[in-house]
Amino acid sequence: MQLELISEACSFEGRQQTYRHSSRVCDCDMQFAAFLPPAAEAGPVPAVYWLSGLTCTEENFSVKSGAQRYAAELGLAVIIPDTSPRGVGIAGEDEFMNVGTGAGFYINATQAPWSAHYRMYDYVARELVAVVNGNLPVDPDRKSISGHSMGGHGALTIGIRNPGEYRSISAFSPISSASRSAWGKQALAAYLGPDESAWLAYDAGAVIRSAPSHHELLVEQGGADPFLDELRPDDLKKACESSGQKLNFRERAGYDHGYFFVGTFIGEHLRFHAEALA
Amino acid sequence: MQLELISEACSFEGRQQTYRHSSRVCDCDMQFAAFLPPAAEAGPVPAVYWLSGLTCTEENFSVKSGAQRYAAELGLAVIIPDTSPRGVGIAGEDEFMNVGTGAGFYINATQAPWSAHYRMYDYVARELVAVVNGNLPVDPDRKSISGHSMGGHGALTIGIRNPGEYRSISAFSPISSASRSAWGKQALAAYLGPDESAWLAYDAGAVIRSAPSHHELLVEQGGADPFLDELRPDDLKKACESSGQKLNFRERAGYDHGYFFVGTFIGEHLRFHAEALA
Repeated sequence: MQLELISEACSFEGRQQTYRHSSRVCDCDMQFAAFLPPAAEAGPVPAVYWLSGLTCTEENFSVKSGAQRYAAELGLAVIIPDTSPRGVGIAGEDEFMNVGTGAGFYINATQAPWSAHYRMYDYVARELVAVVNGNLPVDPDRKSISGHSMGGHGALTIGIRNPGEYRSISAFSPISSASRSAWGKQALAAYLGPDESAWLAYDAGAVIRSAPSHHELLVEQGGADPFLDELRPDDLKKACESSGQKLNFRERAGYDHGYFFVGTFIGEHLRFHAEALA
Repeated sequence: MQLELISEACSFEGRQQTYRHSSRVCDCDMQFAAFLPPAAEAGPVPAVYWLSGLTCTEENFSVKSGAQRYAAELGLAVIIPDTSPRGVGIAGEDEFMNVGTGAGFYINATQAPWSAHYRMYDYVARELVAVVNGNLPVDPDRKSISGHSMGGHGALTIGIRNPGEYRSISAFSPISSASRSAWGKQALAAYLGPDESAWLAYDAGAVIRSAPSHHELLVEQGGADPFLDELRPDDLKKACESSGQKLNFRERAGYDHGYFFVGTFIGEHLRFHAEALA
């Protein structure tokens, strides 16, 4: 697997990098960002995978979250994939904010034309992990997962559906029931077709009801988030209550949906993951 | 002075805001960002003015530096002006990276057409301070100044030329001799005309030689900065040596010119300012 380093900068005595590689799963080139803490100079470190939200690339979290300070202190690598294939030439791929470019929804699409490239579930949960483990100084047995909004949905669904793979799972403002959110419905219909029973494997609440995780989930939610209708945090709480899923749900009064919110609490989430990864 | 709040988000229990106001000095609307720490809820706090570099708006430092965490802890307001007037209709204002939009160089232009609007020295050192003092919960007697690249030049020149106004002065990768830098020469010629003697009031090295500050200057410089020919840190060191200006110059091996560098050390600079402002 050829990995091309396309940018690198020192940050908190570690290294903030961007890589490009040819993805077999998505049948196109993909980019991801990686922060390697100073401890990675001495040997393999645990890794937190961060999944970003709608419209993001691998850059948004890298430049806006301030996570490097905490990751450097805690000795964590942070791996930040892009949110979709890009420029694969599907008609309409740039038409909607919530379908196509920047909106992969961490789904394996089954419907043409998306199914040829939009396989972000397998990309994040399998191929990217193999690429990272094979090329970067990370401990393959110690990884955790987190994300924001659409990426919070991705972290919950990928994390919970792969028991034993991730030591801990957290999310910021996740889309908690993609099959009931307007953004999610449009994306799921495009990627998976009209049979809604196929959608449930990509609906965090449904995934929890069907097979809860043995991990306690840490979920951060801004109390002044303008997208609560899309995020449906009550669906998440109800799914956890009814299934016995342990949930540490923290509502933060006054905080909205943006990266000022994520940046305020990312240190606590990384600390949560570092404890599970120790 | 009417101040329009155009965005606000919670950040580290403080408030990250963007304001627009009508500037008499620049004869146009100007925007600036402000971070108000939680301590500002209880009473006036000291303020650090941050001047950004070429191409920046008030947004870059706000979203990329991670400064809010430190400012919240230290009880500092941070005031972040835009780097130039915008959209004032001067022919060629968007043609160059280093003259016009995003490149005010913290100069009072004397040459038409720039002189009608490009008066960023008076804007930052006078009008913006009056606007902030009159409208935000800051202590007018306690302010400091810092900045990056072109903004480092601005912080040094404005800070040193206004003794008694700022309690402390620092800079990241400053353009240390604008009259000898290619970027600076083009801007100074446009704004001030061909008489180079008029340029020296806006050349940090020359300002230091002519009247050093009683403050020790804190200057952070990346050792892997690709723009050293423009920044001319040796000119700064020589000016300080020859004039007796106290200088704490810290070269950081491996760091480049970007915000990953600024973000790594902004906490130390804010702590330096907080001590002077205590």
